[in-house]
Amino acid sequence: MESNLNHIFELQFAMDTFYFLVCGALVMWMAAGFAMLEAGLVRSKNTTEILTKNVALFAISCTMYLICGYELMYGGGYFLSGVTTVAGMDDAAIAGVLADSAENGFDGDSVYAGASDFFFQVVFVATAMSIVSGAVAERMKLWAFLAFAVVMTGFIYPMEGSWTWNGDSVFGLYELSYSDYAGSGIVHMAGAAAALAGVLLLGARKGKYGPNGEVRAIPGANLPLATLGMFILWMGWFGFNGGSTLKLGGIAVANEVANVFLNTNAAASGGLIAALITGYILFRKADLTMALNGALAGLVAITAEPADPSPFVATLIGAAGGVLVVLSILTLDKLKIDDPVGAISVHGVVGIWGIFAVLISDPEATFMGQLVGTLTIFIWVFVTSLIVWGVLKAIMGLRVSEEQEYEGVDIAECGMEAYPEFTSK
Amino acid sequence: MESNLNHIFELQFAMDTFYFLVCGALVMWMAAGFAMLEAGLVRSKNTTEILTKNVALFAISCTMYLICGYELMYGGGYFLSGVTTVAGMDDAAIAGVLADSAENGFDGDSVYAGASDFFFQVVFVATAMSIVSGAVAERMKLWAFLAFAVVMTGFIYPMEGSWTWNGDSVFGLYELSYSDYAGSGIVHMAGAAAALAGVLLLGARKGKYGPNGEVRAIPGANLPLATLGMFILWMGWFGFNGGSTLKLGGIAVANEVANVFLNTNAAASGGLIAALITGYILFRKADLTMALNGALAGLVAITAEPADPSPFVATLIGAAGGVLVVLSILTLDKLKIDDPVGAISVHGVVGIWGIFAVLISDPEATFMGQLVGTLTIFIWVFVTSLIVWGVLKAIMGLRVSEEQEYEGVDIAECGMEAYPEFTSK
Amino acid sequence: MESNLNHIFELQFAMDTFYFLVCGALVMWMAAGFAMLEAGLVRSKNTTEILTKNVALFAISCTMYLICGYELMYGGGYFLSGVTTVAGMDDAAIAGVLADSAENGFDGDSVYAGASDFFFQVVFVATAMSIVSGAVAERMKLWAFLAFAVVMTGFIYPMEGSWTWNGDSVFGLYELSYSDYAGSGIVHMAGAAAALAGVLLLGARKGKYGPNGEVRAIPGANLPLATLGMFILWMGWFGFNGGSTLKLGGIAVANEVANVFLNTNAAASGGLIAALITGYILFRKADLTMALNGALAGLVAITAEPADPSPFVATLIGAAGGVLVVLSILTLDKLKIDDPVGAISVHGVVGIWGIFAVLISDPEATFMGQLVGTLTIFIWVFVTSLIVWGVLKAIMGLRVSEEQEYEGVDIAECGMEAYPEFTSK
Repeated sequence: MESNLNHIFELQFAMDTFYFLVCGALVMWMAAGFAMLEAGLVRSKNTTEILTKNVALFAISCTMYLICGYELMYGGGYFLSGVTTVAGMDDAAIAGVLADSAENGFDGDSVYAGASDFFFQVVFVATAMSIVSGAVAERMKLWAFLAFAVVMTGFIYPMEGSWTWNGDSVFGLYELSYSDYAGSGIVHMAGAAAALAGVLLLGARKGKYGPNGEVRAIPGANLPLATLGMFILWMGWFGFNGGSTLKLGGIAVANEVANVFLNTNAAASGGLIAALITGYILFRKADLTMALNGALAGLVAITAEPADPSPFVATLIGAAGGVLVVLSILTLDKLKIDDPVGAISVHGVVGIWGIFAVLISDPEATFMGQLVGTLTIFIWVFVTSLIVWGVLKAIMGLRVSEEQEYEGVDIAECGMEAYPEFTSK
Repeated sequence: MESNLNHIFELQFAMDTFYFLVCGALVMWMAAGFAMLEAGLVRSKNTTEILTKNVALFAISCTMYLICGYELMYGGGYFLSGVTTVAGMDDAAIAGVLADSAENGFDGDSVYAGASDFFFQVVFVATAMSIVSGAVAERMKLWAFLAFAVVMTGFIYPMEGSWTWNGDSVFGLYELSYSDYAGSGIVHMAGAAAALAGVLLLGARKGKYGPNGEVRAIPGANLPLATLGMFILWMGWFGFNGGSTLKLGGIAVANEVANVFLNTNAAASGGLIAALITGYILFRKADLTMALNGALAGLVAITAEPADPSPFVATLIGAAGGVLVVLSILTLDKLKIDDPVGAISVHGVVGIWGIFAVLISDPEATFMGQLVGTLTIFIWVFVTSLIVWGVLKAIMGLRVSEEQEYEGVDIAECGMEAYPEFTSK
Repeated sequence: MESNLNHIFELQFAMDTFYFLVCGALVMWMAAGFAMLEAGLVRSKNTTEILTKNVALFAISCTMYLICGYELMYGGGYFLSGVTTVAGMDDAAIAGVLADSAENGFDGDSVYAGASDFFFQVVFVATAMSIVSGAVAERMKLWAFLAFAVVMTGFIYPMEGSWTWNGDSVFGLYELSYSDYAGSGIVHMAGAAAALAGVLLLGARKGKYGPNGEVRAIPGANLPLATLGMFILWMGWFGFNGGSTLKLGGIAVANEVANVFLNTNAAASGGLIAALITGYILFRKADLTMALNGALAGLVAITAEPADPSPFVATLIGAAGGVLVVLSILTLDKLKIDDPVGAISVHGVVGIWGIFAVLISDPEATFMGQLVGTLTIFIWVFVTSLIVWGVLKAIMGLRVSEEQEYEGVDIAECGMEAYPEFTSK
């Protein structure tokens, strides 16, 4: 008997690890999605630089989370030793799980390689950081941005992650009772909060707002690229939400995972359609960039609870996100908060909507719990980011010179154009 | 003993569900492939609009199939209730499968989350609809197209899907004896039939055919994008064909799945090489767009039976598709059927070849069975599509104005250019 | 009892096959990565041609490896018969594995569909060949290149693969004691060796090197595309390295696989950051193309041993690759070895670093073993490639005419421009 159970346990371990790694690879792919989305939505003269920021922030996120971020968030000390067994389990613990599973089935236990957990977590950090790059595009200095990325991914994000997903108390003061399945708040709103702090210190792009309050559209240079980015993000989100079950397990969890995939897809669809229609009502045009942001808004909105809603409710949660994102983009422009790709609206405003949408389908979540969690994350990330951006501003400056902004940051920062043969400028 | 079997069953369920979800995510990715392929093959002035159509049709497909399509095709009623257990199985049925498996092994039973089945099926609908957008590109009104998408994905496709994959009788008149593994006919030819009906009502693009019958090439604006689209489709097709085993199961099915991957890859390769050579013989040039369509033709050709052929035969089936698609594209142009991306040739003409290629390797398929199935699907989709397109033409018109077509539909329909800084026009 | 073990064995077989197929699909995806990377780094007038080479070489690789390559490398005879059971196992052998597994657990045995092994191996061939296309870009005749691809993928690569991964003796003379997990040498350096031979016979692009030894930068036409290509390669590399365990198995192997994913990601990150910093030190600019090549260098460097190093060491191995690739690119330019995309540096020079980096973490590898293996592969591939390129040069010529090179090979070879509406030339 024991021999068979050992075999079964080995298989379960391998399968759950495999599942985790596939989901992690899909989330890693989201880095490409953000890069393409942002590269498509900026002007051609700022494209090389936004690409450089995106590839570098991903590498920095992975390295900083390895050096100290994972340690701060979950403990572990992976960097020097590597991970050779189950996260937090020695052989005796594995034997215990095995015995327990023999009696109660496998569903209750997470059994997968610790390194697969690290791999899955690390790509989330990069997602949070990717959100920032879009909002500060076309005017922030490259090295200041990368310096911020070091602090954000090595310290700011891991701290709030430890209070939420790891359940640590907030500076020993209080514990959160906050429900956020895959991170509408922990990842998306957090990224948007850091972005907002940066944008406030940075100011709007030259020419974005006219002297009489008029808002000037600055069209993105390459919409197929932006569309590709959206599709990549949509696909990667199956890993982002799906992997957040943290295991595949048996029948119950597999059913939950399947619901997550279905609902994630439904919410994105609802968000896209709602944003397209909202855009049409407002502008009498089928606004592609609004549709793209609507799909992303649907995805952000369902992220805090993708398992419990029925597909119908998931579609509506996404659709509400799609309407919200259009209104938020217009509102931020009225407030002269200049966000070239709409990242603060998509991930911040709709992220908050997602956090509270949990109340619709999860009877255990409470309004106060969600509110306190939201405020804790937002205040922590916004204030620390403001400090870091402020320090960077004092030391090295955040903003490129007016001449560099006019000429485009590509030549100034990277020494090369993204499309040297195409632009007529 | 029973306890162990339960564990094994739980694992099998989780693994088969996981497999289905991975395949579904790959098929979802094909939506990006169609979007990039079509965006690369149209002119820059019509690019934003084709992107908008592609993202919107995907969202509409997912939503309509959720509301009524899946219900029509398979029954189920997922929309309001969600899916919380195995498709069509209650606990007693699961116990039955379990008992049966203990005696006979797991191969014969489909055990996976019902929601994963929905997720896999829904991305197929979007594939069928994606085929249409390319054929009617550069001249069809956006909202008319999206209105058609609602009917196609909510009604026309699910009906023929119920007759084929679900085995329902055709309006109570007859039952099909039609073999189509992953949908050369059910998905690809069906999409092409709807496209053909649209193209016939819509007419050719201005300037495509000269007054003396000459065919004018209208080159696509962005061939790297089209190439990327082809690669995405090739990759996604592993999920499209591979997932159509509907399970992963044990040794026998896993061997079948591996053959499907190998043959799918072989047929695409054969198609690409054959089309490249055919193009060279005809034009004395290495025609990239023909090579891309050749690969897709190889994929369509093997889709109706990717498991049974030897890799050698699969390569030949794909190669025949590659030759056929080049000849078909030239022939359709002679008939003044204007299909900017070659979708009717790739998915329709080669789809039919794929249906009959089943006869080569599947001894149970019959010529009459394939013929009746093909005719049933084609006539149903073509006639209903013609009616819907006709109604839409009467109500809102199908075609943009001549001036809008000349200026490009991007500005008229979407209010924004795809590449505002690049085009010299 | 036996019945349960049979079930477990069936599940293990299915899971390992599934794992292999997912990894294979990811490696196939790398073909798209190379295509986008190269298309982004050449000039627009040579883009259609490099795309055509990339799609055609993938199809040729798959077909040639099916016809004879796999047979030469591993034996098997897949082409005509197909693969219907475990690679190299009949029913009696399976029963033996089963009995052995019952006693010793599953870890030691490879149990997966033979066709999945073929599928995984075939995409490696295409990777090796993809490396060549970038180095000879912008001046080599398309059909000469494709003729070389036939020999490389059907003969040259399979021969050295048989000596290394299959353990055959080198022409009956000696056996290698060479450790190369996923192919830093067997795949990457081999591709670079073939490329180097081609570049030496082909010469530099007109205008690349001035009469007084000055090196002129020829910027790539589309950096977002090149960045996308890098991201695709990064993602696909998880399959490339991860699948090279050849199974998923139980706890021990799953842990190894998870370490491979983590280390692959860490090395790419280290390489990117190191190259970015090295580039900044040398040029005072954040050089995107160096960063991209740095990430790829990190990936190549870790490929020969991605399982054993700690993440810290993996990061350093990648970082060393990142520094090395920048220095190598500059050095090759001094030697007037013109490699438009840096493929020889990324895959050749850094590939050799990766081979010897195995000595850091694998106590069983020896310096002499690695050296003899490296020399054997390099000499074999370089000399045979030189002969084949030489024969092709004599028969059909390797280089396009000076006029064609000036006008761009797209029109001459493919008869169509990649971006007909964009370029101002």
